[in-house]
Amino acid sequence: MRKLLFLLFLISVSLSAQNFKYHSEEFYKSITDSIITSSLSGMKGYELLGELCEIGPRLSGSGNSLKAIYWARDKMNEMKFDTVWLQPVMVPKWERGKVETAQIAYPGIMSGKKLNIASLGGSIGTGEKGITAGVIEVRNFEELRNRKDGAKGKIVFFNRPFDNTFVQTFRAYGDAVNQRFAGAVEAAKAGAVGALVRSITSKYDNVPHVGVMFYADSVKKIPAAAIGLEDADLLSNVIKENPGVKINIKMDCSNNGEVLSYNVIGEIKGNEYPEEIITLGGHFDSWDKGCGAHDDGAPCIQTMEVLDIFNRLNIKPKRTIRCVLFINEENGSRGAKAYADSAESKNENHLAAIESDRGAFTPRGFTVETDSVTLSKMQMWLPVLNKSLIDWIRPGGSGVDVSKIKNAKALFGYFPDNQRYFDFHHSANDTFEAVNPREMELGSAAMAILTYLISEEGL
Amino acid sequence: MRKLLFLLFLISVSLSAQNFKYHSEEFYKSITDSIITSSLSGMKGYELLGELCEIGPRLSGSGNSLKAIYWARDKMNEMKFDTVWLQPVMVPKWERGKVETAQIAYPGIMSGKKLNIASLGGSIGTGEKGITAGVIEVRNFEELRNRKDGAKGKIVFFNRPFDNTFVQTFRAYGDAVNQRFAGAVEAAKAGAVGALVRSITSKYDNVPHVGVMFYADSVKKIPAAAIGLEDADLLSNVIKENPGVKINIKMDCSNNGEVLSYNVIGEIKGNEYPEEIITLGGHFDSWDKGCGAHDDGAPCIQTMEVLDIFNRLNIKPKRTIRCVLFINEENGSRGAKAYADSAESKNENHLAAIESDRGAFTPRGFTVETDSVTLSKMQMWLPVLNKSLIDWIRPGGSGVDVSKIKNAKALFGYFPDNQRYFDFHHSANDTFEAVNPREMELGSAAMAILTYLISEEGL
Repeated sequence: MRKLLFLLFLISVSLSAQNFKYHSEEFYKSITDSIITSSLSGMKGYELLGELCEIGPRLSGSGNSLKAIYWARDKMNEMKFDTVWLQPVMVPKWERGKVETAQIAYPGIMSGKKLNIASLGGSIGTGEKGITAGVIEVRNFEELRNRKDGAKGKIVFFNRPFDNTFVQTFRAYGDAVNQRFAGAVEAAKAGAVGALVRSITSKYDNVPHVGVMFYADSVKKIPAAAIGLEDADLLSNVIKENPGVKINIKMDCSNNGEVLSYNVIGEIKGNEYPEEIITLGGHFDSWDKGCGAHDDGAPCIQTMEVLDIFNRLNIKPKRTIRCVLFINEENGSRGAKAYADSAESKNENHLAAIESDRGAFTPRGFTVETDSVTLSKMQMWLPVLNKSLIDWIRPGGSGVDVSKIKNAKALFGYFPDNQRYFDFHHSANDTFEAVNPREMELGSAAMAILTYLISEEGL
Repeated sequence: MRKLLFLLFLISVSLSAQNFKYHSEEFYKSITDSIITSSLSGMKGYELLGELCEIGPRLSGSGNSLKAIYWARDKMNEMKFDTVWLQPVMVPKWERGKVETAQIAYPGIMSGKKLNIASLGGSIGTGEKGITAGVIEVRNFEELRNRKDGAKGKIVFFNRPFDNTFVQTFRAYGDAVNQRFAGAVEAAKAGAVGALVRSITSKYDNVPHVGVMFYADSVKKIPAAAIGLEDADLLSNVIKENPGVKINIKMDCSNNGEVLSYNVIGEIKGNEYPEEIITLGGHFDSWDKGCGAHDDGAPCIQTMEVLDIFNRLNIKPKRTIRCVLFINEENGSRGAKAYADSAESKNENHLAAIESDRGAFTPRGFTVETDSVTLSKMQMWLPVLNKSLIDWIRPGGSGVDVSKIKNAKALFGYFPDNQRYFDFHHSANDTFEAVNPREMELGSAAMAILTYLISEEGL
């Protein structure tokens, strides 16, 4: 038994000695303290978010998005990154236009009642007179296919709510979002002339939450819009009272080809293994309601701030640290493809990539796509990461943009608290005021600490 | 080596088998899912918070606090707790009055500029004409004692800021709060006629954050007030420009003896060990700005909701589950003392107590005062607790109210995220709108799950 205990002791000693290879835990904790203090005292990222939100929303292909791109390039230069460049990308240009209205046409006392709607990204318009038609309300595609009263000539109203019983709000989003993605296609297959989709949000108000929708080549294109929750419930009640009710929808949104845009990229060269790259990034485009503060302005700025933290604390990374602001995640992922293709053609060696695209709330953890040995190694870093409120590293998806990078040893998704995320997501609620400065800055710190550990220790 | 591996295997199996004694992990996870679903789908606690906030703030001894007390008693009866009662407590009656103003008296172009102040709880008033005096700005008591320009006949302006570099905001609060607690006493010792204290908050606006202050028997009582951050910075600049500036402060607050109030108590009797009590609670009094939503209305309602969750899911606890809404935590802790004294005199057996007094934000963990064996045992429950986003149980303080209970095996403090807490704390910002329904309900669920585990498994 004594032999066994001694062996267990040796195992535990060797395990604890293996937590870090190149510096002591105390050393890393001391750098970590400096990073956190710099983030929380300076609030530099939060200030930059204020500037970015002044520019306005950043819909792919819009004039605003270009203004923001040049702003970010200039900021990276001011932050004295070693190299800053724009990577050209062709992106679709969808425009909301000036008209998006809906009202109850007739009959009944609710005639003329306006409904709060917003065109979905990628939708065609209705023409000047709009569409006046009856409404069929369904919860899902199966119900639509089975309903004998038919959707022909009607507007299909997809009214399955965001399921608040999911603890992780992204699951509730995933559970509801096919209505928005494919509602127009499924409605058109059933002979409908338009689609209305209940906003996918955890907040009960009347603000429409938009987002991308898709058409299928073989199916007739019909207009699609999101409707605020209060008006969704009102419409549902009106239909119950009077199944023959008709509504009128007018939208002048349009798809206008492709235009030139850019990923914004900046990097600090590694001084020991410069060919090994750690990329951090988020998507710089946003929807055109609010200012895309949580989705994904603040998270983009967090990844810029990681490099700035290295510079302002005069930390020289062993490996190259790169920030990439990907364009067009919301409706095409062209930026992610262009970056991954370029990395592959240049034979770049991405050791790791970290995506920040889940809002700028208090840190909780990192999800990661990697092998089990690398995962175990990184989990031993938690006593250091925990100082910035990172409680765990778990297997899980990274993000739409960095997941396209091939052959990286580890692809991370930064995972802040997500209880409030869908209160704001893709809506006029997603403003500068929705971001808490401490929560945002702790995220910058958490990603800077992980980046520093990878840069020093390798993977 | 094979023997060793087999032994390690046996150890690990026996350890995992010990996680729970009376049911399987799967059983507990299934109950946990029901608890979470009930909380997040019903949002009953959040609805009750809306009702409570309609009543208004609940300052100890005020008419409003009594209205709220009767409201809570009625709600507990509606929720069909087995027993509901009011426990009488005498509490101090401090009243804010109708006047709390400050302005720059003279000289200079800022003459007449109003400053946003609020009387501190327990402060005396200034008399009708107010106090007009010069101002000496200090960062701490040591500086006050060392300053040769002296405080005699002046108003001492304590202007040490909330230190945002603390990751845990409660530490930043602890670092700054002695200015508010003892500023008036230290100022009076130096011969001053009044004290102004920079609001202790993480939010940069001009809203004063109040809270309790104390006098010492042997030291002259002088009035004390909090000042909003924008006006604190303005005043600091004015003093730098013109050290001879005078300000006028008027406050008609007053201390008006003691009045009768109550703790509100409700319980569900245990069906196997009814003499073993698990108490949950928060403090039902609040400051008289905003409606005390995060401090401590929502947390109180969370502890009521724990019992309601047991009832609505028809869970019959083995042990007695009690909810206590303690009165007068903010300025005297009389409710906590009355409850602890009563428990002692009745020789009640408190197995555990859980306090919720850190706001109603997303769950992160529980701090606990207990022995190491009990702690280790409870940490093995984390795979179940984690479903409600509880990532850890750590040694740490419980709370002002439950910590007075003697001989409990474990005293817990519920520990939600605290990054935004001091944006709202003790101010007009602490309203119903400041509480996110999902965050609040997940807290109810987390405490219900812990309570159920203790009730089933014992400690």
